[in-house]
Amino acid sequence: MRDHRLIDGKVVRARILDEAKAYVEAAGGSNRIGRLVSVSIGDNPEVAVYVRNQARGAVAAGIRFDQQLWSADVTQEECKQRIAAMNDDPNVLGVILQRPVPEHIHVRSLQSAIHPLKDVEGMNPSSIGNIVYSDVALAPCTAAASVELIKETGLELKGLEIVMIGHSEIVGKPAAMMLMAEGATVTVCHHMTRSVAMHSRRADVVVVAVGKAHLIGPEMIKPGAAVIDIGINQITDADGETRIVGDVDTDAVKEVAGWITPVPGGVGPVTVAILMRNATVAHQRQKAAGWIS
Amino acid sequence: MRDHRLIDGKVVRARILDEAKAYVEAAGGSNRIGRLVSVSIGDNPEVAVYVRNQARGAVAAGIRFDQQLWSADVTQEECKQRIAAMNDDPNVLGVILQRPVPEHIHVRSLQSAIHPLKDVEGMNPSSIGNIVYSDVALAPCTAAASVELIKETGLELKGLEIVMIGHSEIVGKPAAMMLMAEGATVTVCHHMTRSVAMHSRRADVVVVAVGKAHLIGPEMIKPGAAVIDIGINQITDADGETRIVGDVDTDAVKEVAGWITPVPGGVGPVTVAILMRNATVAHQRQKAAGWIS
Repeated sequence: MRDHRLIDGKVVRARILDEAKAYVEAAGGSNRIGRLVSVSIGDNPEVAVYVRNQARGAVAAGIRFDQQLWSADVTQEECKQRIAAMNDDPNVLGVILQRPVPEHIHVRSLQSAIHPLKDVEGMNPSSIGNIVYSDVALAPCTAAASVELIKETGLELKGLEIVMIGHSEIVGKPAAMMLMAEGATVTVCHHMTRSVAMHSRRADVVVVAVGKAHLIGPEMIKPGAAVIDIGINQITDADGETRIVGDVDTDAVKEVAGWITPVPGGVGPVTVAILMRNATVAHQRQKAAGWIS
Repeated sequence: MRDHRLIDGKVVRARILDEAKAYVEAAGGSNRIGRLVSVSIGDNPEVAVYVRNQARGAVAAGIRFDQQLWSADVTQEECKQRIAAMNDDPNVLGVILQRPVPEHIHVRSLQSAIHPLKDVEGMNPSSIGNIVYSDVALAPCTAAASVELIKETGLELKGLEIVMIGHSEIVGKPAAMMLMAEGATVTVCHHMTRSVAMHSRRADVVVVAVGKAHLIGPEMIKPGAAVIDIGINQITDADGETRIVGDVDTDAVKEVAGWITPVPGGVGPVTVAILMRNATVAHQRQKAAGWIS
């Protein structure tokens, strides 16, 4: 039987991918819009998993997906030149820079080199700055996925008390800005916060993006609150098996919370779908800017 | 007798301007670094007051200040071209775009046209995005001034509970990001917040940027807290005289708070000084980028 306290990320993912697919079809099909270019620098099995998931999302949305693997000893300058060429190429819809990159590569500088209109991951500082200005067109995918999942509860965001645990540049801070733009009152907690529980126990929604398995237990959650778990942690069971868990002790918190996103199967699937939505938004923006016809 | 609960913005201003002046002198004096260009579009007496204050700050810092008044019927395109020329001019250290502008001018587009290295007001979305990435080199001046005044109390920012009232793009949101970067736990309240008092009464520091005279009374402040008042409101007294007051009922709150910034004489004077500090930072950055020698 379905547990109605669990928010099923796969359902949300399917809906967003369907919308992206309808957009692509209305635009004349996958050959009429550019391709997404995924850039991996150096071979990394962890990155390969992300890329495979993104490629699957692209297939579902009907967007061509070009998986590029650049040599681990490529120079920063060469990377910049290739990105500049993709910025100018009307057949490139967007550029995805997979992380981590080798140590000699300065990742933020490369992210800044991706033109904001092709920044489908929403990682360029000017994309992030636009969020502060409440223009959330190309937002970081995980941050946007957490907002999408809060909306899935049906809670009215205006005036909602939301506590964000974790203040990273790619999730916590942009998600906080996006939630403020929706009218929520947002508190951002982190490792220097005196009492995270003082905040989380009064929150209507708790969003957790810390990267510590089972950090959040039921004693930290207000009964009936929504809990969005962004953590992805690999743990080893008592019987020696490894599995993926979130930052929240899902089974225990489920008994207190009104809604909770499972890990896996919550935020993760939605994140890839948001990447495809961003690709369709990038297409609209490039058209509006006269870059493509 | 001096009231030690009041934080004197003029003292902080003088210190920052002295630092800027020392920087300019070390760089070889005002003729060895470029000038600040202030652009006012259309004649506006309110803007003229800002410009005069900035010009005074520039004199104190030993930075040349070029007050330009552009015709109210200048086109957006012409504005962009002039800004582009200033971006390329090594004798222009920074560009200040005074607001408000005439209705036909799209101010955010012009702010984006100012190169981030010359964006001394910190208004370009990419400057704002850099704050999210904890690179606060060129931050919006009023936001940076409020952070400076909190530091003036001597309170340790790490773990401090700060409540920001007001979530504007140029003050509330960037100040919140800067305070998070310093380790504070920040809650941002606004007109959709259910109970601002619930938050403000538990805060170690309350920063107010709303634009409503005397919105914050003593019942909203925790005894001993610091109160930073960014509001500038003109009110008319019972005897018909107009005067400037902040968003805080200073006289009443002073009896509860540990520190409070007066209006006028608190945040305002510091804001202009931060603009001059930003100018020196822009000079360093332009040198580091090889734009000037």
